[in-house]
Amino acid sequence: VSDQAKTNTAHHEAGHALLALRSDTSLYKATVIPRGNALGHVYMIGRDEHQQTREEFLNSIDTAMAGRAAESIIFGEDKITSGASSDLAKATKLARSMVASLGMTTYGMQASDVTNPQQYKMLAPETRAAIDKEVDKILAASYDRTHKYLKANEISLRRLAEAMLEYQTLDSAEIKAAVNGQDVGVLVRKRLEEEEKMREKEQQTYGGIPPFPPPIEFLPHPNMGTPATGPARNEKL
Amino acid sequence: VSDQAKTNTAHHEAGHALLALRSDTSLYKATVIPRGNALGHVYMIGRDEHQQTREEFLNSIDTAMAGRAAESIIFGEDKITSGASSDLAKATKLARSMVASLGMTTYGMQASDVTNPQQYKMLAPETRAAIDKEVDKILAASYDRTHKYLKANEISLRRLAEAMLEYQTLDSAEIKAAVNGQDVGVLVRKRLEEEEKMREKEQQTYGGIPPFPPPIEFLPHPNMGTPATGPARNEKL
Amino acid sequence: VSDQAKTNTAHHEAGHALLALRSDTSLYKATVIPRGNALGHVYMIGRDEHQQTREEFLNSIDTAMAGRAAESIIFGEDKITSGASSDLAKATKLARSMVASLGMTTYGMQASDVTNPQQYKMLAPETRAAIDKEVDKILAASYDRTHKYLKANEISLRRLAEAMLEYQTLDSAEIKAAVNGQDVGVLVRKRLEEEEKMREKEQQTYGGIPPFPPPIEFLPHPNMGTPATGPARNEKL
Amino acid sequence: VSDQAKTNTAHHEAGHALLALRSDTSLYKATVIPRGNALGHVYMIGRDEHQQTREEFLNSIDTAMAGRAAESIIFGEDKITSGASSDLAKATKLARSMVASLGMTTYGMQASDVTNPQQYKMLAPETRAAIDKEVDKILAASYDRTHKYLKANEISLRRLAEAMLEYQTLDSAEIKAAVNGQDVGVLVRKRLEEEEKMREKEQQTYGGIPPFPPPIEFLPHPNMGTPATGPARNEKL
Amino acid sequence: VSDQAKTNTAHHEAGHALLALRSDTSLYKATVIPRGNALGHVYMIGRDEHQQTREEFLNSIDTAMAGRAAESIIFGEDKITSGASSDLAKATKLARSMVASLGMTTYGMQASDVTNPQQYKMLAPETRAAIDKEVDKILAASYDRTHKYLKANEISLRRLAEAMLEYQTLDSAEIKAAVNGQDVGVLVRKRLEEEEKMREKEQQTYGGIPPFPPPIEFLPHPNMGTPATGPARNEKL
Amino acid sequence: VSDQAKTNTAHHEAGHALLALRSDTSLYKATVIPRGNALGHVYMIGRDEHQQTREEFLNSIDTAMAGRAAESIIFGEDKITSGASSDLAKATKLARSMVASLGMTTYGMQASDVTNPQQYKMLAPETRAAIDKEVDKILAASYDRTHKYLKANEISLRRLAEAMLEYQTLDSAEIKAAVNGQDVGVLVRKRLEEEEKMREKEQQTYGGIPPFPPPIEFLPHPNMGTPATGPARNEKL
Repeated sequence: VSDQAKTNTAHHEAGHALLALRSDTSLYKATVIPRGNALGHVYMIGRDEHQQTREEFLNSIDTAMAGRAAESIIFGEDKITSGASSDLAKATKLARSMVASLGMTTYGMQASDVTNPQQYKMLAPETRAAIDKEVDKILAASYDRTHKYLKANEISLRRLAEAMLEYQTLDSAEIKAAVNGQDVGVLVRKRLEEEEKMREKEQQTYGGIPPFPPPIEFLPHPNMGTPATGPARNEKL
Repeated sequence: VSDQAKTNTAHHEAGHALLALRSDTSLYKATVIPRGNALGHVYMIGRDEHQQTREEFLNSIDTAMAGRAAESIIFGEDKITSGASSDLAKATKLARSMVASLGMTTYGMQASDVTNPQQYKMLAPETRAAIDKEVDKILAASYDRTHKYLKANEISLRRLAEAMLEYQTLDSAEIKAAVNGQDVGVLVRKRLEEEEKMREKEQQTYGGIPPFPPPIEFLPHPNMGTPATGPARNEKL
Repeated sequence: VSDQAKTNTAHHEAGHALLALRSDTSLYKATVIPRGNALGHVYMIGRDEHQQTREEFLNSIDTAMAGRAAESIIFGEDKITSGASSDLAKATKLARSMVASLGMTTYGMQASDVTNPQQYKMLAPETRAAIDKEVDKILAASYDRTHKYLKANEISLRRLAEAMLEYQTLDSAEIKAAVNGQDVGVLVRKRLEEEEKMREKEQQTYGGIPPFPPPIEFLPHPNMGTPATGPARNEKL
Repeated sequence: VSDQAKTNTAHHEAGHALLALRSDTSLYKATVIPRGNALGHVYMIGRDEHQQTREEFLNSIDTAMAGRAAESIIFGEDKITSGASSDLAKATKLARSMVASLGMTTYGMQASDVTNPQQYKMLAPETRAAIDKEVDKILAASYDRTHKYLKANEISLRRLAEAMLEYQTLDSAEIKAAVNGQDVGVLVRKRLEEEEKMREKEQQTYGGIPPFPPPIEFLPHPNMGTPATGPARNEKL
Repeated sequence: VSDQAKTNTAHHEAGHALLALRSDTSLYKATVIPRGNALGHVYMIGRDEHQQTREEFLNSIDTAMAGRAAESIIFGEDKITSGASSDLAKATKLARSMVASLGMTTYGMQASDVTNPQQYKMLAPETRAAIDKEVDKILAASYDRTHKYLKANEISLRRLAEAMLEYQTLDSAEIKAAVNGQDVGVLVRKRLEEEEKMREKEQQTYGGIPPFPPPIEFLPHPNMGTPATGPARNEKL
Repeated sequence: VSDQAKTNTAHHEAGHALLALRSDTSLYKATVIPRGNALGHVYMIGRDEHQQTREEFLNSIDTAMAGRAAESIIFGEDKITSGASSDLAKATKLARSMVASLGMTTYGMQASDVTNPQQYKMLAPETRAAIDKEVDKILAASYDRTHKYLKANEISLRRLAEAMLEYQTLDSAEIKAAVNGQDVGVLVRKRLEEEEKMREKEQQTYGGIPPFPPPIEFLPHPNMGTPATGPARNEKL
């Protein structure tokens, strides 16, 4: 991974993390350590998958858009990357569900199964054009909203990205400290010491089983099926 | 299940129940005890599946719409949830049958098999657009009608939801009592005592076979095929 | 089967029977005894399946439409039922054959295989829209024609329905008597006695083989293939 | 087969035969003896299948249309039958080949494989609409031309149909005699006697092998593949 | 094969040969001896299949169109035959490649895989309509160009066709002689004698292995895949 | 391979190489030695496949377009060849990803899976037309930009092509020398001597293992899947 890619990833992930904080999503940790196809990830605590509100859908879309918006603010339009690819796919999926299956927009209450192409294409081209336009509107409004929010908080964005480049992985308390310009190093060192102690203690007790609880990942909306590429996809925020 | 989800579910199910009462549907019981994917259900006695009238179709659509309308009235548009997903799918299916297979609207008498995508797509895009618009019209009118009805009966809606949160499951007499502001607790306790007695008696006689008759569920229109997810889908009203 | 369903069925079948009489179709018998999915049937003698005329196609469509028209006249638009579902499917199939395969309308002489969706969809959307509109026109004109005919003969319609409710099954002579306000009971009793005698005689001679000739059912146009659900479909008129 | 069907068939086949004579096609024989699904046939000698001219295509279309046109002239529009079904399918196939594969019309030189739906549908809907319209134009012009020709030769048409009803099968010399109002009976009796003699002679020589040469049937255009229903389809003209 | 078919074939193949000469294509030989489904062929030396120029594509299209154009000039529009069927298919394929895959027209640089219907149909109907129109334009211009060229060289066309009818197969020197009105018989006889000598010599040396080198056939553009019917298709020019 | 094809290939590859130099792509070597289906190739060092910028996408498209643009400048529009076929396919793929999956254009942020035709076709025709137009715009602008750049550097283009015809394969230093009009022969001879020495040394040490490091090839965008034809495709620039 090149230095340019690392710097870009730090700001991309910082964008996701800032929007996750804005919408009270239970941010868990953020990292620029590559895993699978992704160069970095943001982890969030899962919410109730049976009843996500319209507001939560919009916040999820904004959080997904924030990686691209951060790239654009910090490096300029010419330098935006293909790294936002799965973010945009996720945002599109959420917006399409809102419009075509969940009656959450001015498109109306007609519900179609967006996971079944053969059945979905029973809808007239005209009807599908109305859906596509509504999806476009949601995504354009979200990007605009997200871009403005990050622009207004550019200092926090840069601070967080720098801290991520320095410490690679930050937990939610450390992210908040970085955003507010506080000393992150103190917190990171303290956490690493505690982790080290726990590891020793665990090794004495159980012989090497990892003490750190596995991250509870952000769960996609139940209507959207399991993503093909597994957890890695959802982690890359 | 979070407290917020429980409260939302109680009002969602109360909405369904109120509309079921309005249209003389044989309401059987309502519950906020989760089962399968759904956080709550409303059970109704099945009607004759060979001859549902146009009026019954419209009432079924209104009843399905009432969960979403109740959420909107009590918690506001931003808080409407994805919980209405299968309700909207059901309402859309009923409306589409009325238009495209049953000649029950101004679209006309041309009948197409809406369960066979390959055959349905023989219809010209223009024709399918006319069907989609008629479906939209039916659903929009139904939501409007349902929203107004529940708004006019907001006190009953809140009473019923509170009773459901307190007692979890109510039978149709208890629902009517709650709606009218009468004491539900008396009825519930009496029913539970009777159920307990019957259980003891049954256990003496048959050794544990459940005495309570299984709910006769609302049967979908025969043209619509068996729903893929089984009874759980129909129960979630 | 509820009383309401029985009453509705009697008038629905009476509508079919009246139109079958109007067009000299060899009406065989009518019944409100449920069989398979249908609550009643009208049986007709089959005609030459190689050469049905344009006139015979239109009469078949009118006869199919008459069930729905009768429901509308007697019970009102709100009470029309899903019971007309297979009638409308049959009328649509006949009208589509007239337009798209048999050159019997102003659409023209271009013949397409309406039973082969992949091949039919080679036609341009514009062409298929022209076909759909012509089908609509035929069905709308037929419903209008049928509705007016039954309205003008409402007394006969009511008489026939009442007789069917009283005696359940009527043969063609009994149907004509009922339509004309004559005493049906005399004829029914005489027929039942004769049937009883024949049964006894048969039992003496052959030991229980049914003496009544099996109904020769209305055969669909040869281009339309065998209906998936077998005879039951054609019987439900 | 009813008398009405026989009369209709005789005039239908007489129409085909008259048009076959008009265009110098080697007419072989005509019959109203049912075979397979068809109530009558016209047999023609096959032509060179590698090089059919534009003129021959148009004549084949006219000959196919002549059955329907004859029905309309003799019995009126209300009495046209579904018996023209395979004639129209054949005429449509020929016209579509002329337009879409053979560059024989003003549509242009773009050649598409009309026997491969998946590939044909690569053409834009707009392009396919142009093809459908050109096909319509060819068929409408052919029907008009054929109708006028038969109307102008109505006496011959009636004579030929009468002769066919009387003698059932006529060879080409007998057809010409009937058309010109000459005595067909003499020719038929002479042919039957000769056939009888030959049969006796054959039986003496070979022991029962049929002496009459098998009809050389009209071969469809090589681009159109073998018709699914075999020779019977091509014979029914 | 009828005389009419032979005469038509001779002029059809002469048309191909004249256009092949015009564009310096390495014409090899021409024949009216039937092979496979075709009544005659023109053979050409293959060119570099990796780099055909825009000019070579247009020449190939003109050469393919020349058979139909010759038929039209010599026998009139009514007598054009279905024999041009595979020529038009080939010309359409070449024109479509130029437009949709090779960026050789005003349609633009967007390249689509014309051999993959599923993928090609991802293009919007509007885009495919633009492609179809551009293909039409190329073919119409080519036919016009070819028709004018052959009309201006009608004497040569007739001379070549006559020589082909007389000698059946001509090599490229003989074709040039025929076109210029020179004595073809001398050349043919000389060639046949040489061929005879070589055959004898070969038979002495190798015992019957054919001495004449096998024709190097015109190779289709590499993007178009191997034609399903093998060499016969390419030979029929 | 003909001389004309070699000359054309040299200029085609020189066009690719000049554009690769313009955009700081790590050009590795260029050759006119045929391999697989291609008559020449340009090799480039692979970049980070997780994060290609918008600028890098446009540069890749320009580099792909440069082969065709060079042909047009040097030999004229009539002589452009089918050799640009896979270049245009690659440029179209990159442009389509930018528009439909990566939100890099004014089309918007809606992301669709361009590798899944069934799913992609859920988009309305209108939406797909917007995508096709945006792709057209990118490709037209790229070709225009590339054509102007090569026209302005025609002397360098011709020098490089001549050097490639003389020495067949050039490494990046030699390409730069050729472009600047310096003596390429000196560099090539020096490199060949060094390669020869290394080979001898290797053979003494390892017994024949190739000392030259295998080229690190240009890696396509991760969203585009592995190209069907393997490395040859990517090498042919």
